[in-house]
Amino acid sequence: MVLALSLGRRGLGRVWPNPNVGCVIVAQGRIVGRGRTADGGRPHAETQALAQAGAQARGATAYVTLEPCAHHGRTPPCAEALVAAGVARVVVAAHDPDPRVAGRGIARLRVAGITVETGLMVDEARRDLSGFLSRIERGRPFVTLKLAASLDGRIATGTGESRWITGPRARARVHMMRARHDAVMVGGGTARADDPMLTVRGLGIERQPVRVVVSRRLDLPLDGALARSAATVPLWLCHETSVDAAPWTAQGAVSLPCTLANGQVDVSAALAALGEAGLTRVFCEGGAALAASLLAADLVDELALFTAGCAIGAEGTPALAAMGIDRLGNAPRLELAAQERVGADLMSLWRRPG
Amino acid sequence: MVLALSLGRRGLGRVWPNPNVGCVIVAQGRIVGRGRTADGGRPHAETQALAQAGAQARGATAYVTLEPCAHHGRTPPCAEALVAAGVARVVVAAHDPDPRVAGRGIARLRVAGITVETGLMVDEARRDLSGFLSRIERGRPFVTLKLAASLDGRIATGTGESRWITGPRARARVHMMRARHDAVMVGGGTARADDPMLTVRGLGIERQPVRVVVSRRLDLPLDGALARSAATVPLWLCHETSVDAAPWTAQGAVSLPCTLANGQVDVSAALAALGEAGLTRVFCEGGAALAASLLAADLVDELALFTAGCAIGAEGTPALAAMGIDRLGNAPRLELAAQERVGADLMSLWRRPG
Repeated sequence: MVLALSLGRRGLGRVWPNPNVGCVIVAQGRIVGRGRTADGGRPHAETQALAQAGAQARGATAYVTLEPCAHHGRTPPCAEALVAAGVARVVVAAHDPDPRVAGRGIARLRVAGITVETGLMVDEARRDLSGFLSRIERGRPFVTLKLAASLDGRIATGTGESRWITGPRARARVHMMRARHDAVMVGGGTARADDPMLTVRGLGIERQPVRVVVSRRLDLPLDGALARSAATVPLWLCHETSVDAAPWTAQGAVSLPCTLANGQVDVSAALAALGEAGLTRVFCEGGAALAASLLAADLVDELALFTAGCAIGAEGTPALAAMGIDRLGNAPRLELAAQERVGADLMSLWRRPG
Repeated sequence: MVLALSLGRRGLGRVWPNPNVGCVIVAQGRIVGRGRTADGGRPHAETQALAQAGAQARGATAYVTLEPCAHHGRTPPCAEALVAAGVARVVVAAHDPDPRVAGRGIARLRVAGITVETGLMVDEARRDLSGFLSRIERGRPFVTLKLAASLDGRIATGTGESRWITGPRARARVHMMRARHDAVMVGGGTARADDPMLTVRGLGIERQPVRVVVSRRLDLPLDGALARSAATVPLWLCHETSVDAAPWTAQGAVSLPCTLANGQVDVSAALAALGEAGLTRVFCEGGAALAASLLAADLVDELALFTAGCAIGAEGTPALAAMGIDRLGNAPRLELAAQERVGADLMSLWRRPG
């Protein structure tokens, strides 16, 4: 199962809207097949592992990180494939809450006389599959917020200089983190100020995450880096309903009209739209307003905080905009999960409690 | 020497204005004497170790973290004591830059026929003795700045609530850090807002660090916690020359008139005054204005940053006030030395480069 989980994790950021499942088939103490959900979401992990195992699957044990699917989607159900291959035993880590599966996969296996065990390493599996599970169970993607700030929590000087507060190792780490998410998201202010590409660079990967910009008025330059690359790398725009997105869709961008809350794009609605569109893991890189909105709405599942060893002072741009927090008891709280030196900078990971 | 350094470190915060020296005497492979600079600075480490060794010091080797003193102060010179005891060999970690010593201690030993070796673990010794060395070499104490802030670098909510952003383990750690410094220093704003005692509590120690308040106008409540305890725990006040400090000295406080810079107490002048008065290690706990002044003047040797897992947003009080930093290249830079979970919070230690 450890190997199956490891295989599944390779699919992070590459298999949406499907779950990043891993599967290992063991016959007589030897691994005869291994698979993960392929890039783009198909074929499924079980299909690939069974193909590799061939006739050796008969009487074998399959370790799979998520309950095999039982429904006919674009591929035949994996539960059927396991039955047809003559597998004797299936060990499942996590149940699939997808209403099209939800126990039917396991039931199908048992009806066919296959021994099914569940719950092995379920916590690890649920963490690895948190994007997919979030989309199914909460109707929105898993959200990682990245902040890169000075010792005193500033993301730019008073004159707007922000490149680079953190060092090259931290920036390379950010590209690795982007690659493990389905989408990279920023607010309109950041898109205007930084004119970023938001692509994964320096890692030799082909498949790019979707770029998402949350901008109420869509007041972004149509000749900027994002717009110019919209035809080649997905660009999705969350904006208010009344804005005309035609100039953007003409360039290849996808328009996601959203409701407003407090005069801004409602981040809950925007995330729901992104989940509906298939995204399971979103990596938000600010700016201060979007980050504050997400935190205030308790929509941040994980925070990756990069702290650089410089002090900017109160004229600098704060990492988080106003949040309307008057009492400490009302401040959103996250739990420290890990801390690590990354080059000259400190990276700390914080997770939503529970 | 490892043991001698360890003994010396026990004197941190307790031996000013003297250095926190450690000494171990070894005869025929056995430790026959050990000592450290006593609380208050006397007796010296060598005196105590020699007293413990007695006649066994004859022909023995003395390991001492700092060059033995050669001048008649309030105690006879340690170099003479080592000679008189008949020690055969002295291993010294760091040279003493005090102009009254500065090689004369070692010369005195060599003249008496004692073998002297220097430089063993000199980097560790200089780090442990950094307070004393700073006072002698730079004319000011070693400065540790402590900041306890939210994820976004805020030390209070917009309504001024600051208790408690960090948890009980972090606060206990702060008391341990206070105990290892000669003085705890805050700005006048913090003294007014928090009415703190600035004492070491919960560690069962008797000896308290000096409390230092930097307040240009001395506009602090004369019935506050600091004033009320001035007769029992030292309270030193850095203020502008024209202020009448008599009401404070009448309560037992010490007045240190300082020059101004940019309309504030000149932090360089204040630290020079504190060094002149004997302090070797100062622990500054804010507030935002004093912390920013120290960083902007490149006077912070070590920064202990406690980061709590809460987000406060831009209405909160920033950890650092305005610093006049317009370009990132002008921002003071510190190097990450260590990071550690402390209870629910993250503590990171940053040091001045070089």
